[in-house]
Amino acid sequence: MIIYLAGPDVFLPDAVEIGRRKAEICAAHGLTGLYPLDNAVNTASADASLTIFKSNEAMMESADAIIANLTPFRGPSADAGTVYELGYMAGRGKLCLAYSNDPASYANRVARRQQVLAAPDGRLIDAEGLTVEEFGLPDNLMMMHALDLHGAPLVTPAEAPADIWHDLACFDACVRLAAARAQRQPGFN
Amino acid sequence: MIIYLAGPDVFLPDAVEIGRRKAEICAAHGLTGLYPLDNAVNTASADASLTIFKSNEAMMESADAIIANLTPFRGPSADAGTVYELGYMAGRGKLCLAYSNDPASYANRVARRQQVLAAPDGRLIDAEGLTVEEFGLPDNLMMMHALDLHGAPLVTPAEAPADIWHDLACFDACVRLAAARAQRQPGFN
Repeated sequence: MIIYLAGPDVFLPDAVEIGRRKAEICAAHGLTGLYPLDNAVNTASADASLTIFKSNEAMMESADAIIANLTPFRGPSADAGTVYELGYMAGRGKLCLAYSNDPASYANRVARRQQVLAAPDGRLIDAEGLTVEEFGLPDNLMMMHALDLHGAPLVTPAEAPADIWHDLACFDACVRLAAARAQRQPGFN
Repeated sequence: MIIYLAGPDVFLPDAVEIGRRKAEICAAHGLTGLYPLDNAVNTASADASLTIFKSNEAMMESADAIIANLTPFRGPSADAGTVYELGYMAGRGKLCLAYSNDPASYANRVARRQQVLAAPDGRLIDAEGLTVEEFGLPDNLMMMHALDLHGAPLVTPAEAPADIWHDLACFDACVRLAAARAQRQPGFN
């Protein structure tokens, strides 16, 4: 089974090292991990972003599954690029797995960052008056239920680890889920 | 042509009215707009979020295209649910169109919210040391180039309108793009 390793990990100072560790964990379970940064693109070139997009899309096409790191990134939700890729893989009918190293509910996470209150009509709203989804889910319902129905429920820790960007325990749990699936469906190789 | 109308519009206090206006604009161009809130779900029920997910996924399946509102939502990027849906529709091979009422680049938008600086290795980084994508694009490159290659470039205004949540000029421009496409490809109806 070939797995596309999506996540804001590519933005870490030690992005290459994290990718190497993730690919090693996959290999230890007989799986192949494809990490976006494998495409060492010259970011100074004029069409660097398009080159990265095409390379990532081709990698997703070649993969049987995705393991997405949905740890909140610069806001209460996951990294937009990672979320796009999760949606794309769901649309392509691939196996969708994901983890988040922040176990808080989405509503609690919004409340950490700004005042949240109950509107007269009963909705939970933010400072702008926009509804805050409060289904007790860790992130937007579209992503959470996509995982439930197209793969496995989001993997989260009981408590956030000390280093949310480098702790790979939940990633490891996703790889084990993928390996179990590969064993049940020998079509994956 | 049937168009799925994705966006954080569903979180507005006047979500139903905005959906009605968007569907009317589609109808004025001979297109059918499907707005997620059409499914008036009882949010108090235990499986409300799953019901909403299934209904939205079925709507996306029945649509030929998506027009996504990628105006930044609770952070420097678009709403995660909307981004998931854009990815899903790209994966399903549907026509992908989108707009954002904030024309700023992603890097500028991050810099509005927190200190951004140049790391010794040349990367632009945020307060956590994570890379800030700086390709001059309005949001994450995966979404932006998905639009370029699976539909049309992101539609943005020259300047942000006074009311970023209710101004539909850029939405209207997307509908015109969809109508022109429907005319060129009469398979869409």
